[in-house]
Amino acid sequence: MRMVDLIEKKRNGGELAEEEIRFLIGGFTDGSIPDYQMAAFAMAVCFRGMTDRETAVLTDAMMRSGDVVDLSRFGDKTVDKHSTGGVGDKTTLIVAPIVSCLGGKMAKMSGRGLGHTGGTVDKLESIPGYQTTLPVDRFMQQVEDIGVAVIGQSGNLTPADKKLYALRDVTATVDSLPLITASIMSKKLAAGAHSIVLDVKIGSGAFMKTQADGERLAQSMVSIGKACGRKVVAVMTNMDIPLGTNIGNALEVQESVEVLRGGGSEDLRTVCRVLAANMLHLCNGWDLDYAERQVDESVASGRAFAQMKRWIAAQGGDTRVLDDVSLLPQASVRETLESPRSGYLTHMDAQLIGEASAVLGAGRQTKTDPIDYAAGIVLRKKTGAYVRQGEPLAVLHTNRPGALPEAKAAFLRALSWGDQAPQAQPLIYGIVK
Amino acid sequence: MRMVDLIEKKRNGGELAEEEIRFLIGGFTDGSIPDYQMAAFAMAVCFRGMTDRETAVLTDAMMRSGDVVDLSRFGDKTVDKHSTGGVGDKTTLIVAPIVSCLGGKMAKMSGRGLGHTGGTVDKLESIPGYQTTLPVDRFMQQVEDIGVAVIGQSGNLTPADKKLYALRDVTATVDSLPLITASIMSKKLAAGAHSIVLDVKIGSGAFMKTQADGERLAQSMVSIGKACGRKVVAVMTNMDIPLGTNIGNALEVQESVEVLRGGGSEDLRTVCRVLAANMLHLCNGWDLDYAERQVDESVASGRAFAQMKRWIAAQGGDTRVLDDVSLLPQASVRETLESPRSGYLTHMDAQLIGEASAVLGAGRQTKTDPIDYAAGIVLRKKTGAYVRQGEPLAVLHTNRPGALPEAKAAFLRALSWGDQAPQAQPLIYGIVK
Repeated sequence: MRMVDLIEKKRNGGELAEEEIRFLIGGFTDGSIPDYQMAAFAMAVCFRGMTDRETAVLTDAMMRSGDVVDLSRFGDKTVDKHSTGGVGDKTTLIVAPIVSCLGGKMAKMSGRGLGHTGGTVDKLESIPGYQTTLPVDRFMQQVEDIGVAVIGQSGNLTPADKKLYALRDVTATVDSLPLITASIMSKKLAAGAHSIVLDVKIGSGAFMKTQADGERLAQSMVSIGKACGRKVVAVMTNMDIPLGTNIGNALEVQESVEVLRGGGSEDLRTVCRVLAANMLHLCNGWDLDYAERQVDESVASGRAFAQMKRWIAAQGGDTRVLDDVSLLPQASVRETLESPRSGYLTHMDAQLIGEASAVLGAGRQTKTDPIDYAAGIVLRKKTGAYVRQGEPLAVLHTNRPGALPEAKAAFLRALSWGDQAPQAQPLIYGIVK
Repeated sequence: MRMVDLIEKKRNGGELAEEEIRFLIGGFTDGSIPDYQMAAFAMAVCFRGMTDRETAVLTDAMMRSGDVVDLSRFGDKTVDKHSTGGVGDKTTLIVAPIVSCLGGKMAKMSGRGLGHTGGTVDKLESIPGYQTTLPVDRFMQQVEDIGVAVIGQSGNLTPADKKLYALRDVTATVDSLPLITASIMSKKLAAGAHSIVLDVKIGSGAFMKTQADGERLAQSMVSIGKACGRKVVAVMTNMDIPLGTNIGNALEVQESVEVLRGGGSEDLRTVCRVLAANMLHLCNGWDLDYAERQVDESVASGRAFAQMKRWIAAQGGDTRVLDDVSLLPQASVRETLESPRSGYLTHMDAQLIGEASAVLGAGRQTKTDPIDYAAGIVLRKKTGAYVRQGEPLAVLHTNRPGALPEAKAAFLRALSWGDQAPQAQPLIYGIVK
């Protein structure tokens, strides 16, 4: 079998056979198929697409390219959540304790932030002492004991995806539905959970900008996940504006604590309720209404917050910061951004706001950039609000005062204004089962 | 400027600006743009194409990626010919002496054969003593003195094309009109001739299998050549069956001598007459009818054959082999292939016959394979002939008797038979000016 023939077959619109896709991924992983051939293949896939059968085989081949986590000791109780990435998305910090205190087993590996989106691992590391790497046996034992453990991606999981993603990033081949599906699902499948809830973000701060694109990705991922024998649901949620009010690592931990203590903003609480209920629907077999009531009860009773403390303590984190969030890393400068005009806030571009937060120190431009856990933005107004000139729009937190002008400019560029209140957008676009 | 943005622009169907194309070719040539990015770009071009303006800039950038031969001392008399490659195509050996004895200046660099197609340099090397490399000053002086010199490609001509062609070959991106055009024309332009006649071969033995594809390539190349300030004509010729009767290096020299001495087969004589006349039309300003009469006269008078001897002698070749072709390398085995059946020969696949010849030793599978100059095939019947069972179809020449069964089988597979004479195909499909 020759790679050049497989590239040509795809370029001409053909469907690759299972053994051809396995040859391709095997050779790319072991280095016998060079990057330039894979890059040409990926570009051909951008134009020609892949059939569901091809995408399922590609996902499976990438999943098996490295280690596969064995969670079989937990039976069918394991459940995972994956967000396609957004701004202010701290849902993992909230649903992990809720779901695990209600019987789900969450043995979760999370990622770091890059560009305008944050990463759960960075957020957790803003809690002093929290260990994001654990030996496998301790990770498993913690899930056994308390139902939840969240670490960074470790071991040799899906090396084919790591290599292919890095290549797609520099060859303008990221934007391909089958390649996105295979990348996300191979990682989720290798992470071993029996049930998976996908949070497909849609809007200006998300990778999928339109509802149609988001729905296509949701359907593709659910179909591939099921073809690989897992229980999968995709919840399509709004990421046109940031989720909740806080953006930045310690600031998002603080907001998560607020939600688990019964407070927090309505949009964030709603998204977390729907995600957690769908997770419990899959792993516990509960109907959704019952699951939602259980979720609300776990928060109202304090069980979920107690579970968060148990989890953070188990991984070495200082739980005093959860009782007193002022002990979390604090920025030396807090500057209130006042509104330059009066009017209705008709839109806030989530990506630009994420970028403003990164400029303040909360994010990375390259994988090796350091992160300032204290930096970020707290929104005082969100889309739909009527704002008077001089009213606070947001508070910018940073230890780099020199970055304030650029961050402010980016934030203000993110805002659109009008004379009338904008039409309200749905928070949940739908669920794909 | 970032290469990934240029790839994305082309993927999305955009037109690249001149400075973007120059950045791309410059970076690829100096190694700062890696193969994998160029491979993705080439695949995007396969799907999106290039505008005439983009193709002209690409050609110019590739032409200037290395040395450019300066033939300005010969004024507007320099003329080159380029064939897109075929089987039994020995036209350079015939038109070079004809055109140069009629006033054209042919300072020509030719290629070697690969796969089923032969190369002029290999054919010339079958003449004992012929030097295919010359120092630049001797090469120029010979053109000055006798009007013709033919050497192998030397120096650092179009390194961008060499690198890109090697990459396209292994990434299934050969088949793209703008990339083919830029590859051929950048080399021809760098070789310096003021006038260029392109022989676009069409049919089973050619790269372009259909008349429509051939015409598109011809139009593209002529348009780009003119945009770069040269006089260019493309002659579209039939390569559905081999040209002439002899295939193989020394065998093709022998047939060339026959034509220059007034013999040879009609198809080969006609193609050479049209090519030479178009070359003289461009470099001498002659009208085509007058040029054709001059071509015929140069052969009938013996001037062209005398010019061939002068040329071969100037490059160290033993001209006795031209007077007595039996002194050319001879194969130890000559096996006559008899017809297995009676009937009309309705088609002979030129590519398969070229491959049969390569199996006998006349060609290379990889660039470093040695060549047996004596090996090849002499056709006794061509498409359209009625053949009786047992009549000779061809004579196979080889020094590898063990290769005969495979070569015979390939040759017989190349033939199609019928009960009626096939419709005659045109030899010249047309001329694009």
